[in-house]
Amino acid sequence: MKNLIILGSTGSIGTSALAVADRFPDRLRVAGLAAGSDSELLRAQVERYGPVSVALGNGEPGAALLRLCDSVGSRLLAGPQAVAELAAWPDGDVVVTAVVGAAGLEPTLAAVDAGKRVALANKEALVMAGELVLERARRGGAEIVPIDGEHNAIFQCLQGQAPDRLRRIMLCSSGGPLLSLDEAELDGVTIEQALNHPRWDMGRKISVDSATMMNKGLEMIEARWLFDLEPEQISVVIHPQSVVHSLVEFVDGSVLAQIGRTDMAMPIQYCLSYPERWDRSDMRLDLAAVSPLEFFEPDAERFPALALAREAMAAGGTAPAVLSAADEVAVEAFLEKAIPFRAVVEVVAAVLGQHKTAGRANLQEILRADRWAREAAREEVRRLRAG
Amino acid sequence: MKNLIILGSTGSIGTSALAVADRFPDRLRVAGLAAGSDSELLRAQVERYGPVSVALGNGEPGAALLRLCDSVGSRLLAGPQAVAELAAWPDGDVVVTAVVGAAGLEPTLAAVDAGKRVALANKEALVMAGELVLERARRGGAEIVPIDGEHNAIFQCLQGQAPDRLRRIMLCSSGGPLLSLDEAELDGVTIEQALNHPRWDMGRKISVDSATMMNKGLEMIEARWLFDLEPEQISVVIHPQSVVHSLVEFVDGSVLAQIGRTDMAMPIQYCLSYPERWDRSDMRLDLAAVSPLEFFEPDAERFPALALAREAMAAGGTAPAVLSAADEVAVEAFLEKAIPFRAVVEVVAAVLGQHKTAGRANLQEILRADRWAREAAREEVRRLRAG
Repeated sequence: MKNLIILGSTGSIGTSALAVADRFPDRLRVAGLAAGSDSELLRAQVERYGPVSVALGNGEPGAALLRLCDSVGSRLLAGPQAVAELAAWPDGDVVVTAVVGAAGLEPTLAAVDAGKRVALANKEALVMAGELVLERARRGGAEIVPIDGEHNAIFQCLQGQAPDRLRRIMLCSSGGPLLSLDEAELDGVTIEQALNHPRWDMGRKISVDSATMMNKGLEMIEARWLFDLEPEQISVVIHPQSVVHSLVEFVDGSVLAQIGRTDMAMPIQYCLSYPERWDRSDMRLDLAAVSPLEFFEPDAERFPALALAREAMAAGGTAPAVLSAADEVAVEAFLEKAIPFRAVVEVVAAVLGQHKTAGRANLQEILRADRWAREAAREEVRRLRAG
Repeated sequence: MKNLIILGSTGSIGTSALAVADRFPDRLRVAGLAAGSDSELLRAQVERYGPVSVALGNGEPGAALLRLCDSVGSRLLAGPQAVAELAAWPDGDVVVTAVVGAAGLEPTLAAVDAGKRVALANKEALVMAGELVLERARRGGAEIVPIDGEHNAIFQCLQGQAPDRLRRIMLCSSGGPLLSLDEAELDGVTIEQALNHPRWDMGRKISVDSATMMNKGLEMIEARWLFDLEPEQISVVIHPQSVVHSLVEFVDGSVLAQIGRTDMAMPIQYCLSYPERWDRSDMRLDLAAVSPLEFFEPDAERFPALALAREAMAAGGTAPAVLSAADEVAVEAFLEKAIPFRAVVEVVAAVLGQHKTAGRANLQEILRADRWAREAAREEVRRLRAG
């Protein structure tokens, strides 16, 4: 029996992780839940699972949550360190880090410092501070298993393989909802179009990132740290069917691919069961039914986010944190209809262009760069609206 | 440095294995060569590699080979036990068993008894006596790594995975040269058509077996023993591009596939390097260039060999040996224009239909069944020619 802690329990990944726990009640105990703020969904989860601890990332618990925690015997943590405290809770075995955005960094660091199995869904922790997170995971004896479908696929393909025999990885991208649009059509993309992902049902931020392909750019940076790769070992291939989740090429030319249903339940369950695999007879893939499988090179002209992310990855230091923070602000602005779709990547490019990075960065430098980039991105958004 | 013994050095697999040895002279030493009989190619190989031992499976060495072995210092073995003796030679580290047909069984048993790494290319050893070969390999401490592209793919996908977490394997088949022909067209298939394999450049016997899909049937039986599977865990999928070499589905629904160039050099090298992987920068796969990848169910009506092989696999005992022996005779008859293409599988079906099998079989029962099946198949061929 493993004690499961879910950071971000009310989001898309968090609820899927709970669904896995529902299927395997003799293997997983929901021991801790953290959410951004008090909500009806959080209260329903507390009522159902009676976790030992509940943490709120922002804001204060309402009277109903206070009463509920009292009645089911859950300890309620609030305040700026609440989520990180839950992540490091000594009785937790597996910590799912599904907090969205930069807020996931500190809890992730807390979990790796505490030597947990970390089922990592928070992109920003690795994008902003991947080198640091992996270094502290090694020191803390933590084990990071990525939830993200692409990285999970690569993780699976590397089992039993010598890491130094890896030639390169190929991160698959569905191409997002806008794959077939031409340059002119990209100008007028609406929020509805950007959110209408053809294959994956995901949160809003990541859906827009898929539409710009910044998501794949961020994944390249994550992969660099997760698998200890040089930037030139990381490539992206468009695969509209989203059945092959990613591929690994070894030095002898042999390629391994992980394939499966387009359902986040699969990589989430793998992270929770690893190194075991638990039975899911409902998760069979009918290869003939999804055939044919297409693969092609991404179009760098129409999707400049990829080159931008590669630039930030090569620059290193604080550059990826700046890329990620500026993107968070720009996506938010797009979702608030403050800027048009194509401006999302333009804002990020402008902010990255203004930034000076230098070699390795410590946590404080990274957090400072993150704050600077948010301000610079907001300024850029204002400038665009004014212009 | 590994001492390499190649049984069947003048065939398609044997010469490819020598080409791998040529590329890695600091890792592989060609220490032994066995061929069916004396030939110009064998003499050229002996001259080039100066192996410690040379074995002839059939017939007598000519004067030129005798002189040559004398001058390069190779010990020459001849007689019925020569190849098996070479297979068990104490100084051999890796034995490539690329002898074609039932003649490969005894040398394979000799190699596994001697605890060698066996790079197995001879199908018949496993089809006829897979249970026995695997049992003796376990007892002898031998390690079998399959050369056949499909089994090699599955072997690669299973590295680092718990075998009991395997749900099923999907053996890929290109569909052979006759995939697009309809029932009527199959009647008139010529030798040239049957040998004209679209993807793989192989020997004549295996090319005809690909055309009938008996090859895939025999591979199902091999896979059963190699990977310790129940018959219902083995499926076949048609994949005309032959880029995905085979797939493995685990109990959690996750599928791993091994992918690569359509070149036998790749699995052969893997068998020789395993558990290492050796650099081949010339072996990169361009996924976009081979896209799209198609997968569909095999047509049981047009390719009855699959069902026939499944029947023999389920019956067990001596039935697979009968299937394989009858097929060898029937393919030979087709290549001699004694019977039409469709009669190849009809002959095998007729012989299998006459055979009574019983549970487990020992080596003598298997060899007796093999002899009986050959005679019965010849009789069937005669009957067809007379009728």
